[in-house]
Amino acid sequence: MELIEFKPTKEQLNYTFGGAAPVMKIKPGTALKLWSEDAFNNTINKITDLSSEKVDLRFVNPQTGPFYVEGAEPGDALAIHIVDMKPARGHGASSTIPFFGGLTSTDRTAMLQDALPDTTWIYEVNSAKNTVGFQSRFGDFAVELPIECMFGTIGVAPAGGEVRSALVPERFGGNMDSPEVRKGATVYLGVNVEGALFSIGDGHYRQGEGEACGTAVEGAMDSIIIVDLIKGAAPAWPRIENDEFYMAVGSSRPMEDSWRIGQVELIRWFQDLYGLHQMDSYQLLSQITKVPVANVVDANFSVVIKAAKELLPNVSAFKSMHASLKERAKDLKL
Amino acid sequence: MELIEFKPTKEQLNYTFGGAAPVMKIKPGTALKLWSEDAFNNTINKITDLSSEKVDLRFVNPQTGPFYVEGAEPGDALAIHIVDMKPARGHGASSTIPFFGGLTSTDRTAMLQDALPDTTWIYEVNSAKNTVGFQSRFGDFAVELPIECMFGTIGVAPAGGEVRSALVPERFGGNMDSPEVRKGATVYLGVNVEGALFSIGDGHYRQGEGEACGTAVEGAMDSIIIVDLIKGAAPAWPRIENDEFYMAVGSSRPMEDSWRIGQVELIRWFQDLYGLHQMDSYQLLSQITKVPVANVVDANFSVVIKAAKELLPNVSAFKSMHASLKERAKDLKL
Amino acid sequence: MELIEFKPTKEQLNYTFGGAAPVMKIKPGTALKLWSEDAFNNTINKITDLSSEKVDLRFVNPQTGPFYVEGAEPGDALAIHIVDMKPARGHGASSTIPFFGGLTSTDRTAMLQDALPDTTWIYEVNSAKNTVGFQSRFGDFAVELPIECMFGTIGVAPAGGEVRSALVPERFGGNMDSPEVRKGATVYLGVNVEGALFSIGDGHYRQGEGEACGTAVEGAMDSIIIVDLIKGAAPAWPRIENDEFYMAVGSSRPMEDSWRIGQVELIRWFQDLYGLHQMDSYQLLSQITKVPVANVVDANFSVVIKAAKELLPNVSAFKSMHASLKERAKDLKL
Amino acid sequence: MELIEFKPTKEQLNYTFGGAAPVMKIKPGTALKLWSEDAFNNTINKITDLSSEKVDLRFVNPQTGPFYVEGAEPGDALAIHIVDMKPARGHGASSTIPFFGGLTSTDRTAMLQDALPDTTWIYEVNSAKNTVGFQSRFGDFAVELPIECMFGTIGVAPAGGEVRSALVPERFGGNMDSPEVRKGATVYLGVNVEGALFSIGDGHYRQGEGEACGTAVEGAMDSIIIVDLIKGAAPAWPRIENDEFYMAVGSSRPMEDSWRIGQVELIRWFQDLYGLHQMDSYQLLSQITKVPVANVVDANFSVVIKAAKELLPNVSAFKSMHASLKERAKDLKL
Repeated sequence: MELIEFKPTKEQLNYTFGGAAPVMKIKPGTALKLWSEDAFNNTINKITDLSSEKVDLRFVNPQTGPFYVEGAEPGDALAIHIVDMKPARGHGASSTIPFFGGLTSTDRTAMLQDALPDTTWIYEVNSAKNTVGFQSRFGDFAVELPIECMFGTIGVAPAGGEVRSALVPERFGGNMDSPEVRKGATVYLGVNVEGALFSIGDGHYRQGEGEACGTAVEGAMDSIIIVDLIKGAAPAWPRIENDEFYMAVGSSRPMEDSWRIGQVELIRWFQDLYGLHQMDSYQLLSQITKVPVANVVDANFSVVIKAAKELLPNVSAFKSMHASLKERAKDLKL
Repeated sequence: MELIEFKPTKEQLNYTFGGAAPVMKIKPGTALKLWSEDAFNNTINKITDLSSEKVDLRFVNPQTGPFYVEGAEPGDALAIHIVDMKPARGHGASSTIPFFGGLTSTDRTAMLQDALPDTTWIYEVNSAKNTVGFQSRFGDFAVELPIECMFGTIGVAPAGGEVRSALVPERFGGNMDSPEVRKGATVYLGVNVEGALFSIGDGHYRQGEGEACGTAVEGAMDSIIIVDLIKGAAPAWPRIENDEFYMAVGSSRPMEDSWRIGQVELIRWFQDLYGLHQMDSYQLLSQITKVPVANVVDANFSVVIKAAKELLPNVSAFKSMHASLKERAKDLKL
Repeated sequence: MELIEFKPTKEQLNYTFGGAAPVMKIKPGTALKLWSEDAFNNTINKITDLSSEKVDLRFVNPQTGPFYVEGAEPGDALAIHIVDMKPARGHGASSTIPFFGGLTSTDRTAMLQDALPDTTWIYEVNSAKNTVGFQSRFGDFAVELPIECMFGTIGVAPAGGEVRSALVPERFGGNMDSPEVRKGATVYLGVNVEGALFSIGDGHYRQGEGEACGTAVEGAMDSIIIVDLIKGAAPAWPRIENDEFYMAVGSSRPMEDSWRIGQVELIRWFQDLYGLHQMDSYQLLSQITKVPVANVVDANFSVVIKAAKELLPNVSAFKSMHASLKERAKDLKL
Repeated sequence: MELIEFKPTKEQLNYTFGGAAPVMKIKPGTALKLWSEDAFNNTINKITDLSSEKVDLRFVNPQTGPFYVEGAEPGDALAIHIVDMKPARGHGASSTIPFFGGLTSTDRTAMLQDALPDTTWIYEVNSAKNTVGFQSRFGDFAVELPIECMFGTIGVAPAGGEVRSALVPERFGGNMDSPEVRKGATVYLGVNVEGALFSIGDGHYRQGEGEACGTAVEGAMDSIIIVDLIKGAAPAWPRIENDEFYMAVGSSRPMEDSWRIGQVELIRWFQDLYGLHQMDSYQLLSQITKVPVANVVDANFSVVIKAAKELLPNVSAFKSMHASLKERAKDLKL
């Protein structure tokens, strides 16, 4: 298997899904060793770096990519397996950007109150212990938290000639901010344009479900992924598979619509996997799904619907793509 | 410790929070061995029992209670520890009630489409294996699922003289339909009226997060709970504690508001537990919360926000009430 | 026609729909000359009266009523015709109650920002010009605005034994805060309990659609209404008729659900009025409805759907009740 | 004043805001005599033309434009005055597209119910009476309705390099589907890219507020508009002015957020127009705004907030642009 290494220069970073020329063409089955810049574009590195002063909102969530996958056509499913991830910098950062986040008024949930204080927290990485350190900004409380790397964004070019900001989660993936997009996961995305044009970015050293304050422990990331293609198997919305779960992700507003989208998507998947009638799939999943919220802060809110494999008979999804990618990933190391 | 056994007659069942005379007075610290009827009021017992024919919507979610807790006054916190739960009947039932549920139009999300088919699934209890059996209604698929008992409803009388249907989750608890309300959990509810007037019901042999189709594996339940009181410590919204997590539950519409309520409630709790500034509590919880959806089908949608104790320094909540209740529960068995 | 005058004492005011004993029994067809207290319960009378200091939230939206209507049974429609309204006090008041209103975080749309300043505006009534005077609190701008009296609340006891705060708009009417509930309108409400138990209150000397800041120009009100009954004709949600429009009001959250409820209710009404198929009623109303928002600040948001009579063939609604009530109202004067 | 006539060929039609090359460059102050295709792209012309068979969703809401306005730069306000509109075809059409519309489940409000029947209504234009004819599809009811022409879409290229479908209403205008965008209105849009790149389309011969079934009386349109520029005066969200009202339009989900956006935008405008403090502007508009819903069916829902000029002292907005454009429009005729 081919392993291609790619670390974008500042000029090679992109800030949209769709609308950018591919950084390279790859064949299905290619492994990529990637570096991605943090969501703040490396502008927040100490607690005196305030988002309102340092962050240029035109240049956030810089994307590594897009990659043109040879042979990918609308209607295909792109499979992206995350082999490994680790922090590429010695610290992560989180900020309460004025009028951005889940517990503040925003440009959408518009109100007349003053903004919360623009505050920055720096999380030092302790590689030996595999932790990041939370340190209070208004007191002495400190605690070490396990590093749990994930990608906030993973997506392809949208349909219909649209170009969307890298801050947006949607049908094409994008800024879903789900902790499920981590090592060991295979993400399935429907291809909308020739070459699929996928990219990744917005690495988080850890993130709570919901990403309440609007930013995770944001950090540059080293990663290895394998990219493959399943012809004619495009899901309607992003699906994720790992060793434990089948998952679907809905992204919309209000949040009950995100949930509805994801729940219907998993019902459809289960109809296929187990030959179930729609009503039986609805019933069965009603009794077994786990529903972790992903983000309640982005242009769309994202909700994950997941069903544990251990509760269910063993079947093959997407032609056993996940198992195959795991097998191929065995010898790859960061 | 006093252990009082109570199995309501059909006439003793109640269908509201508030508005019903107490079935008995108990002292704080009392243990109760309870029986609760299923949400359908025992009308759905075979697959030919259709909800549209058998269920009287005036008499659903029958409550065991209300119990008047001596000394409970507005501003106090009621602590209800669930010692144990087990099925009190040999089968559970689930139905897709017309125009009720998460993936159908409803009286609120009103549309013009026809209802989904009114369908009933019966889940036989296998006590030896501790499972319930899912059996397709439109095919041959069958699978045994672990029993994971929980209460759909647990609540007190509302404030302001209101009386609410037992189908409603709100600030007073009620029909939150959260799988977290299970064995080992201590639920904290703010007292609104003298005596608190709490009740429980709507037992589920298992339920997926979201309760997508509108009903869980509904079943009559045997349970033991211990009820205690913490003077002057009323939380604004329901909180839950177990050995692993601190939790808060928000219930409103749209679902992002349920999330906001729960997230703010846990932030407030963490400010108290760890002496944190609001902004530090916001930040810390942003990186560690788990956010399982509870229900997306009731009069309000419910979302749970939870933080793992193992990530955090050891502190005492509600005067160590949870630990105390666990200790007292040791000798109690169903 | 009987004309009964009723001015409640402070002790006779009620603060809920349902749950209160009737202040009197009346026969269908009775005219009532009523006085209603303002929403603040007469606590805000000068700009130094701050809502956070003066208003007791347990005693807001005091209701004049409930009235027991003889012969009213569940399934009937109560028709309440507003003959006339005028200010019963020389000034109205509006306040930005902390964490209440449409452009501030609230207990539901919970956030971490500070409250907007608690500010009071007093509107002097100019009876000669029939205006109220807006006077800036933070500058010199002043303007006279026409008095356009309306009731914020009009409702009956809820179904299912519920008791709801007078702050809540719902299926039973209540705190809809619609400017359409004004002189010349006939409001149709479905009866849920024997006697209907309707009440009115929360008079506004004027109000913008949406009631953005949370309070209108609140004021005590003199009014005359006529109450009548249409057996077996209960609408699912409140309907309103005046000389120009057929209307339906939906109240829920999120606001699109309020809209859906009202739109479906008017579609159902048009199916009956014109013998239309559901799809034709949907289509026709899609091209002619006016949709003024009523409130975006209460426990539920309210949206009015209305269709102009002048666009349509002349038909009789509710057995020509509106025309009959208008005729009967001719000799009644405030 | 220059009057340029432009009727696009089928190949010149565009389907996005942003992402398309300008059809021509014009100077500020130019009058344009335009023809626009209907939203269905002329595929629905008789009742047997079903949307599911005839409409290609990649080619709906065809835009006339984009026009490059010389000198327009980010931060400027584009002013588009609608001088006149009239039907350019002898009939309009409306369809209930499967899983599209306000009272059906959709790809966002995803559910499991069957679609409503795909049905087409044709409205014959009666030029003499200036009406369109509604004719029941499932019965005999028919009625003539006044023609009230409006543009469903009017917008500029989005910010941030985004390209959005012509079905989307947003900060850049777009598919707001507001009946206020009609003859006599001046629409102000913030410019995001050099040349502004505005386009118009989606003409409606009439439409109810909300556009409940998802489509209006869709028809090709002849129109005259005048386009001008106010340097450095970009509003945050679309504003509209006519002889009677100042208006702002918010577009988002859930609908309360659309309302919040529009209400805040009008508050900001009134702070400027009348030198008001934020709290006074909030208060004043709370008592005078009209709030007609525009659409509850598109990718975002749109709500209009409007304040009547007759209630207020006379002031000049956008350097009296509306009055100036009206004056200049006097001699222009369709």
